[in-house]
Amino acid sequence: MRSKAFAVLFAGILLGFMAASGGMAAPPAKPTAKYVFLFIGDGLGIAQRNSAELYVAATRGLSRPEQAKLVMNTFPAQGMNTTYDLTSVIPDSASAATAISCGFKTKSGVIGMDAQAKVRYETIAELAKKKGWKIGILSSVSLDHATPAAFYAHVPSRRQMYEISMQLVESGFDYFAGGQLLQPADQKDPGKPNALETAKKNGYRVAMGRAGFQQLKRGSGKVIAMNDLVDKNAAMYYALDQKNGNGHVTLAEYTAKGIELLENPKGFFMMIEGGKIDWACHANDAAASIHDVLALDEAVAEAVKFYQKHPQETLIIVTGDHETGGMTIGFAGTRYSSFVDKIRHQKMSYIEFGKKWEEYKKTQSKGDAKFEDILPLIKEAFGLYILSPEEKAALQKTMGEGKGKDASEEVKKAAKEAEIKMKYSMLLTDLELKVLQEAFQQSMVGKKERAADDYTYLLYGGYEPLAVKLTTILNNKAGIGWTSYSHTGVPVPTSALGVGATMFNGYYDQTDIYVKMMRIAGFGK
Amino acid sequence: MRSKAFAVLFAGILLGFMAASGGMAAPPAKPTAKYVFLFIGDGLGIAQRNSAELYVAATRGLSRPEQAKLVMNTFPAQGMNTTYDLTSVIPDSASAATAISCGFKTKSGVIGMDAQAKVRYETIAELAKKKGWKIGILSSVSLDHATPAAFYAHVPSRRQMYEISMQLVESGFDYFAGGQLLQPADQKDPGKPNALETAKKNGYRVAMGRAGFQQLKRGSGKVIAMNDLVDKNAAMYYALDQKNGNGHVTLAEYTAKGIELLENPKGFFMMIEGGKIDWACHANDAAASIHDVLALDEAVAEAVKFYQKHPQETLIIVTGDHETGGMTIGFAGTRYSSFVDKIRHQKMSYIEFGKKWEEYKKTQSKGDAKFEDILPLIKEAFGLYILSPEEKAALQKTMGEGKGKDASEEVKKAAKEAEIKMKYSMLLTDLELKVLQEAFQQSMVGKKERAADDYTYLLYGGYEPLAVKLTTILNNKAGIGWTSYSHTGVPVPTSALGVGATMFNGYYDQTDIYVKMMRIAGFGK
Repeated sequence: MRSKAFAVLFAGILLGFMAASGGMAAPPAKPTAKYVFLFIGDGLGIAQRNSAELYVAATRGLSRPEQAKLVMNTFPAQGMNTTYDLTSVIPDSASAATAISCGFKTKSGVIGMDAQAKVRYETIAELAKKKGWKIGILSSVSLDHATPAAFYAHVPSRRQMYEISMQLVESGFDYFAGGQLLQPADQKDPGKPNALETAKKNGYRVAMGRAGFQQLKRGSGKVIAMNDLVDKNAAMYYALDQKNGNGHVTLAEYTAKGIELLENPKGFFMMIEGGKIDWACHANDAAASIHDVLALDEAVAEAVKFYQKHPQETLIIVTGDHETGGMTIGFAGTRYSSFVDKIRHQKMSYIEFGKKWEEYKKTQSKGDAKFEDILPLIKEAFGLYILSPEEKAALQKTMGEGKGKDASEEVKKAAKEAEIKMKYSMLLTDLELKVLQEAFQQSMVGKKERAADDYTYLLYGGYEPLAVKLTTILNNKAGIGWTSYSHTGVPVPTSALGVGATMFNGYYDQTDIYVKMMRIAGFGK
Repeated sequence: MRSKAFAVLFAGILLGFMAASGGMAAPPAKPTAKYVFLFIGDGLGIAQRNSAELYVAATRGLSRPEQAKLVMNTFPAQGMNTTYDLTSVIPDSASAATAISCGFKTKSGVIGMDAQAKVRYETIAELAKKKGWKIGILSSVSLDHATPAAFYAHVPSRRQMYEISMQLVESGFDYFAGGQLLQPADQKDPGKPNALETAKKNGYRVAMGRAGFQQLKRGSGKVIAMNDLVDKNAAMYYALDQKNGNGHVTLAEYTAKGIELLENPKGFFMMIEGGKIDWACHANDAAASIHDVLALDEAVAEAVKFYQKHPQETLIIVTGDHETGGMTIGFAGTRYSSFVDKIRHQKMSYIEFGKKWEEYKKTQSKGDAKFEDILPLIKEAFGLYILSPEEKAALQKTMGEGKGKDASEEVKKAAKEAEIKMKYSMLLTDLELKVLQEAFQQSMVGKKERAADDYTYLLYGGYEPLAVKLTTILNNKAGIGWTSYSHTGVPVPTSALGVGATMFNGYYDQTDIYVKMMRIAGFGK
């Protein structure tokens, strides 16, 4: 009798599961997580993830590209979501992050408020704080930037960075980490309090650089941890440029430290932003994007380690707020071929190249500047080079000989090698060279004197002309294409692991990420 | 005691379910489906789906773009899959379809065989046939094209279309429908049998056009149903060009008929290809792609109707074999704005435009051809137009007046309207006009005399120069960008509804689609 009853019960539950598998109505289980990690790759679309995987496959000697998997791409739940905001189908980071943090769509530029900037929306981080959870907000860009701000601030415009900084230090959140504050002081009224000083008054410990970071331990209290090595936007360096590893504290290190500081029986919510994926993609710099995606993935791996210890209580989500740049794994010029391994030749981001290029420019008066002078730097930074007329003539001669009717196998082989060297190497083609020489001239002209017409924008997108053409030429040689210097409106992937993860399967809107998180955290319906 | 035992068991099963949700090991349920629909959108990536949704939202007066959902995008299971083949990370349709039909990766161009073209792989359709299922193979392109061929043929090269046609008529499959055969006769040896004649000998009923289609009914036996209105590649017309609806039999109609003909107690397998999405995207023609995606989605809707009657026995999968064109919803020139509604102005595909343009060219000797002559056709086909110098001057004057310090609200409003007319309408900008005039000249030169250099390829991709520039200019105005005239290597979405659908969630490889289908059909482990 009893075993029969068991069987019936078992069958009933199994049918419920099967029905759910088939997309039929079945009441979902109501698991709750008290440790929630939300990773946001700013600008992280499908091609941003994919290019990083192809780069790993190409540079780490894997026999098949399918073998390279980002940690985030191994998560059992993988969804796609739309990112449209109330201004356009192409959102900005303020409206997109607000959709995720508050569950409401708003206009581009608005943070944590409605489109009219009248209603303040409570963020999931603020609610979790009220429930007694500890809160961590991490970003590789400045901590008052749009994406992190959308979890603690409410302002009509993302440009109100001083106000955002002040709301940060008044948030009572437990752990901020990553870049610095871009505007801790009010630009207009120096009489107003400095945000970092207010932070200290409010009981925050400000941990600067690696030295400050190393002193942090469980019981350190409320912390603002910032890299001392930051760019002019108060953001962490591109992962590609973090050469002296010891100086820079990485996003993965800040994530591991966050776990150490925030773990407690009531729970924690941590938002970790890979913010410079977006900046790299605005500039059409695939190498910078790829390395920042990998840096974000290393931070994800830290969360996975924690999940493995607390599988019944942890949820990890990885999403993008929108795609940036219209990146894809295909370029007209390379047709059906792909050479992602060529990206490895890029040794610095467009920013670091730009610095060196500015140094050169300072040494030159306009008339004296010669494109040839910059070729060594171009080779050092991007691996791109030209041949002397003699070398080129010799290669062309070898290619010609290979086409001869009576060419021996040896001559044919040499011709093939010459052809590959000419066509597929890091050698700049005549067309590419022409584009670079034009960009060189435009760079020398200077931004103010440069034409501000549509054509010039299409060519350079407001970036330093030579730098942006070098990255796009290298990207195109690698078979990576771009369509924009702005965000795009294509849906982005969302991955989830842990309690309730399957809810993140499917095709849904960005605001649903909030709804699902709320439900799984036990805060929502 | 008993209730406690129940509780323990329940908790155990629930934990199993939760563990499965969290990606932990749990033996999957083994549901089986006997009606399997596999829809393949050739070139159907995320942007191809998304652009169709945005087009529907923009043209059907929906208040929010999220409201427009393709039927395929409402499916409960949505996965992403990689499509790399053994030649490149960018596959062709032969290798990609073989991965789906046979579960093995092969080289570009190979159909149903290994990379050395020595081993014949059994396709899921062939196996299903052996098991007593009925088989339907449908495509909007020719029935001997790579994608449909990968389900019944085994050839070293997709170009062996006569051999493919002969294997089609020897397959014993029950229902073929869509386009015609491109090479029913051997091009080299006219003595060889004609495939269509062989088909009749083998018991196939050949149903030509709508007349033939209308006579088909349950019990019609083995059928090859073909449109009589086909293009020069023996493919159905683009949905955008199927103006006289009665003449063309649509993919949705063929799908509904397939259900009628194939339904039987043992089961059926139907592969339905939307083949011209790919062709449209090769040519960078978003309007043609969007309408063919919608046509495929209508066919999907027919399968869903059947699923609703047989929910416990039906599985529907919609995938893409690869992405084509590097399409995205963002273009540098339109920055953060999107104007997908502008696509509605395109009234015919690049092919139909090309036909009309050829007509014009025939009436002209080279020296006489004037770009101005073709402006009415450009307006008719794409809605793009220019202003006379007088109209332009008047608009510019109005814009200037609006900038005046003492301009009244009325004058400012008129200036704003003039600005919109100049910038955002279907008016061709000076830059666009220059591009079109160059393309016009290149078109007049003729393909053989046209430069075959890389620059020319980047501009026109081997297409009719004026047609391809018109579609890309319209697309760019709409905020849609492209990076290639070839396929790309980005992962594509796969959607599933019905028995075992949840297995299609996640991020996996194309070959896994085969594994999952096999398992759900009860053929695999």
